[in-house]
Order: sequence, then C-alpha cells, then structure tokens
Amino acid sequence: MNIYDISKAAGVSIASVSRVINGADNVSEKTRKKVMDIIDEYGYTPNAYARGLGRGSMKTIGIMCSDSSDIYLANAIYYLETELRKNGYNSILCCTGYDLENKKAGFELLKSRQVDAFILAGSKFVEKKLEDDQYIIDGAKEHPVMLVNGFIDADNVYSTTCDDKGGMKDAFIKLYESGSKNIIYVYSSDSYSGMQKIEGVKAGAKKCNIPEKNLRIIKGHKSYYDIARLLDEEYAREPFDAIITSSDTSGVGAVKFAVKRGLRIPEELQIVSFNNSKLAEASTPELTSVDTMLQELCSKTCKSLMKLLNPEVDADGNSIPVSVPKRTIVKAKLVKRETTRF
Amino acid sequence: MNIYDISKAAGVSIASVSRVINGADNVSEKTRKKVMDIIDEYGYTPNAYARGLGRGSMKTIGIMCSDSSDIYLANAIYYLETELRKNGYNSILCCTGYDLENKKAGFELLKSRQVDAFILAGSKFVEKKLEDDQYIIDGAKEHPVMLVNGFIDADNVYSTTCDDKGGMKDAFIKLYESGSKNIIYVYSSDSYSGMQKIEGVKAGAKKCNIPEKNLRIIKGHKSYYDIARLLDEEYAREPFDAIITSSDTSGVGAVKFAVKRGLRIPEELQIVSFNNSKLAEASTPELTSVDTMLQELCSKTCKSLMKLLNPEVDADGNSIPVSVPKRTIVKAKLVKRETTRF
Repeated sequence: MNIYDISKAAGVSIASVSRVINGADNVSEKTRKKVMDIIDEYGYTPNAYARGLGRGSMKTIGIMCSDSSDIYLANAIYYLETELRKNGYNSILCCTGYDLENKKAGFELLKSRQVDAFILAGSKFVEKKLEDDQYIIDGAKEHPVMLVNGFIDADNVYSTTCDDKGGMKDAFIKLYESGSKNIIYVYSSDSYSGMQKIEGVKAGAKKCNIPEKNLRIIKGHKSYYDIARLLDEEYAREPFDAIITSSDTSGVGAVKFAVKRGLRIPEELQIVSFNNSKLAEASTPELTSVDTMLQELCSKTCKSLMKLLNPEVDADGNSIPVSVPKRTIVKAKLVKRETTRF
Repeated sequence: MNIYDISKAAGVSIASVSRVINGADNVSEKTRKKVMDIIDEYGYTPNAYARGLGRGSMKTIGIMCSDSSDIYLANAIYYLETELRKNGYNSILCCTGYDLENKKAGFELLKSRQVDAFILAGSKFVEKKLEDDQYIIDGAKEHPVMLVNGFIDADNVYSTTCDDKGGMKDAFIKLYESGSKNIIYVYSSDSYSGMQKIEGVKAGAKKCNIPEKNLRIIKGHKSYYDIARLLDEEYAREPFDAIITSSDTSGVGAVKFAVKRGLRIPEELQIVSFNNSKLAEASTPELTSVDTMLQELCSKTCKSLMKLLNPEVDADGNSIPVSVPKRTIVKAKLVKRETTRF
C-alpha cells in the first residue's frame, strides 16, 4: 500500500499519513492510531515512499551551472540529464552566472522546488573563501550535494574531479620528449581547476629538469583573439616552439596565432589544449587536447547519487549504510590529433 | 478577491474557478453560475491572478530545450535566463531530448513546478503532425507558451522566429554575384527551420535564373566528418565552387573537406554557413555565416512574455488588454568573414 491508499483507507489526509510515517509531533493520537492500524493490517511500501510518493518528492534533481553557453558546462548538463533520465529521475536546471548572490538565489530556487538532491556542475561553485560556500554546506544538511569538477570538504557533499594536474604534467612531458624545449603555458582562470593545471605544468617542467624560473606562464582572457594577440606579443619578445593552453577556446586562439605568424603546425610549433570539447575537433588543424573525462565524471556522479537516494534494504527492511566516497578522482587522457608530433 | 477567495466563497475547487475564468468548456452550468455570482458581487483581481499571487506563482518561467549540448540551444538558454533574471524572474530548464514522449514528460514536469509560463527553445518542438503538439496547445490554455524559432498556430502560443528563408536567399545571391556559378547546399535536418532554409536556397537560385533541376541539394548527418566525406564524394562526381551549409558544424565540415582536397578558400571555393555561433569564429579560416539573431529572438520573446504576465492596469484597476503579436519575425544578417570573396 502506498501513502495514497493508506490515506484513503484511514480516512485521513495524505499530509497526516506523511506526518505519522515521518514521526512528526503535530499529529493527534487518534489520527496516528488510524494510520498505524491500516499499516499494520495491509503493510506499507517504504520503497514507494522513498520514491517520493509520501514526501512530495518528484524524483527530481536540481542541477546548477554557472554558464550554459560554456561548451564544457553545456556538455556536462547534457550528460547529467541523460544519465538521470536513464535512472528514472527528472532534472531541473538553474544557470546562475558567476555572481555569488545569484548562485545562492539559484540554490534557494531549486530548494523551493523540492528537489531530492543538488548537482553543481563546474569548478566555479568552489569559492576562494570557504565561508562563501556556507549556503552549499547548509543545503547539504537536507539533501546530498554532488560537485562535478570541484571539491568542498563538508558533510553530505560528494565530489568527482578529474586529475587535471596529472593530465597537464603528462602533456608537458610529451611535448618536451618530442623535441619542444621552449614551452609556453597560457591560462585564463584562477579557479580551483585552474590552479591544479598550473601545478601540473610545473610538475611536468620539474620532471624535465627545467628550473621553474625558466618556465613561461602567461594569463589572458578567454577569447580567441585575445589569446592570439597575447601569444603574438610574447613570440615577438622571444620565440617558443610549443604552446599548452588551459582550454580548447585558447587552443583555437593558439592556432590562429600560428596561422597568422606563418608557423607550420606541428613541425615548427606544437599545441596541446585542454578539455577535448567539440572545439578541439572543429579546429583546423585539429587540436591535440587533454580529455578531462567529463562524461565519466558525470556518470560517476549520478551513480553515487543514485546509491545515496536509493539505499539498499536488508531482509528486515532496514536500509544498509551507503558507502559513497566523498571524493572520486578520474584520470585525464591525452587525445592526440594534428597539432603535435607525438 | 483572488482565485482562492472565490473558490472558498463559491464552494467550488480552485481548478473550477480557473476553468470558469479561462472560459473552458468542461464546467457545469451550476458551477459557472456560482463562480460568476461571486465575481459579480465581490469583484475579481485578474492582475493579481496574472501575477500569480492567487496561484502560488514564484515568478518562475519554465524553459524547455531539446539538447543543451547543441551550441545554438545552449546560447539560447543563456540569453533567455539572463533576460528573465533582469526582469526579476527565475527560470528552470528541462532538457528533453528529441523523443516526443520525453518532451511531453518535460512539459508536465515544469507544469507541476507551477511555472508562470513556458518558453520552448528551438524548432524541434514543432512536430511534423500538429496533433503531436496537442500537449503544447493544451498547456497554453493555462499559461502562455513562447516559442523561440518555431511556430504553432494556437491560442496563447506566441512565436518569435528568424527569417531563415530570407537569410539563405541572400547568401545564395551573394555567392552567385561574387562569381560562384556551381553552388551546393548541404543540410542535416528536416525541421520547420530546415525546410525554410531549403526554400531560401531555392528562392535565391530562382532569383539568379538557375532552374531548380540544376540545383544541388544534399543531406548529411550533423558531424564534421560525415559532412566532409559527403562533400568529397560529391566533388569527385562533379566539382562545385561554393558550399552553403545549414549549420556552422557542417560549415566546419566543409572547411575540413576543402583543406583535405587542397582547395584554396575563398579563391577556389567559397563557404557560407548558418547560425553564426562560436564555431564560425573558431574555424580557421573563419566562416562567413548567416546570423540568425538569436539574442534578439530571445530578448523579444522575453519582452513579449513580460507584457503578457504583467498587463498594465488603467485608473479603475482594470487590466488593459495586452497586444502581443502571435508571430514576430526577425531579419537574418549575413556576417562576412574569411571564407567568401564578398
């Protein structure tokens, strides 16, 4: 019997049944008895309840992303929604922009829509100051919060990240081993993931015995033209023979710079970009890019979430404690295309 | 008096009051009389109703899109959310995929979240058979439905579309006038918008006195490689000197074909793509592309919606009838870059 059947049989409202089942205080003894008698007689299907019939849950996950026009995030949303739908869950999305107040408002909005859990897509939700993430930590007291490509150390917050650092380190070493001795790194974001990538570049340089002071790291805006212009200025100052970029967008900028300068790719200049999005393939020549395994990140996130929301039940009907790691790390993969010699 | 007060005073359900106010058929004469008597006696505040005070509105718009990983749609979502937020509205998004059943389920989900209106982004919601859009037509009886880049002729459904046909016609004529006499058109979708584009190509050819039987129109899958391979086969059969594509993705495929064939762009081969998304600029050489004015489409959609949801009130407190055209058409714009000689 589900909550509707019980409500009907006991002659009390669904809300009352729900209150009894949840052990709430504000129920009269008479009502409680009516409901419990029915349950004792006909049984009750807590699974149906877990599925949300009782709590007004609608098997819906709230997804937040900072910017749906970002190709990486647009793909994340796509993977998450597809995976959730496969598991019988709907999702509603709130695009918040980059402003903290709007992020908080978006979180509240989803909460008010009675979502069963939150998925926060992209590293932009991990603020510089932990106190700015208090709204997430508080929210996690009520519902699980899953972070895709970000990490916050708090109860009921689970994160799945890619080993960006390892991916960058690997790219640097491959470029060096294939003959590029003067490698420049261009990045555009100081986010958590952005910092990890710089660490990776440094680790790669160290492995190749390049002193950190000889390492060229420059910061630009995330647009093809800005990156191309910036690289052109740097090249005029002192030529380089390989570029690593922190995104595919910047990788496209690097290609435009090379074409304008008349540098042959990959003979005179090698390029490795990051994310392995559609842009990497759209570029001519096609970009060698570090794949951050977004689809796997999203799929692992959803798998953990399903475990959390639908705990298994033992023979006595007691739910078995769920073992979901607070942090899951996925290895990055270098996808070789036309802008490198290896 | 709002809808709740009327429901209470008349002793009928809120749904019945709503039906009476909306002039729906499925109301008994008795119920209708009860409701109208109360309204006649105490008055009724349609503005409050429209603003949702009666109905528990949370100033939230439901947005549906078929595929958030599509760059065009990802941008549409971004523009819509930004514009709505500026007007003090939240939005929740449901990505439905291309399957009709999932579209219907997504629509129901948003409805259950008490949205004030729907925005359906992309031409994929206009089905081949009008009866398959009945869920939209029915939904529009309760809340306005705004279509971005699609048209359905029904009450309370408003559409904003780009003049895709005119844009394509213009592109064809420009290519012809700049010397390309053998133009091929590659497309990948039979949607409403897809059909309009073919009409535009035909209209352009007619204007240039090219008989329709001499017009080369081929259909491919929406991937760089498929389009490139398809063009290569067609070129082997009979060379052409210009390509028009129905999307920027296919435009990138056309560039890849040209580079592989060793054709110089734009000297030996001109290319015009469609949508003017980030991909058009990411391509090297950069693609001349028909801008479908997505931002303007989205902004006009939101402007009309705000008028519908917040009708002005005259001195006596009566709402002034809203004049929102059922169909708004925005002119396309050809953005010239490196793949054309004009």
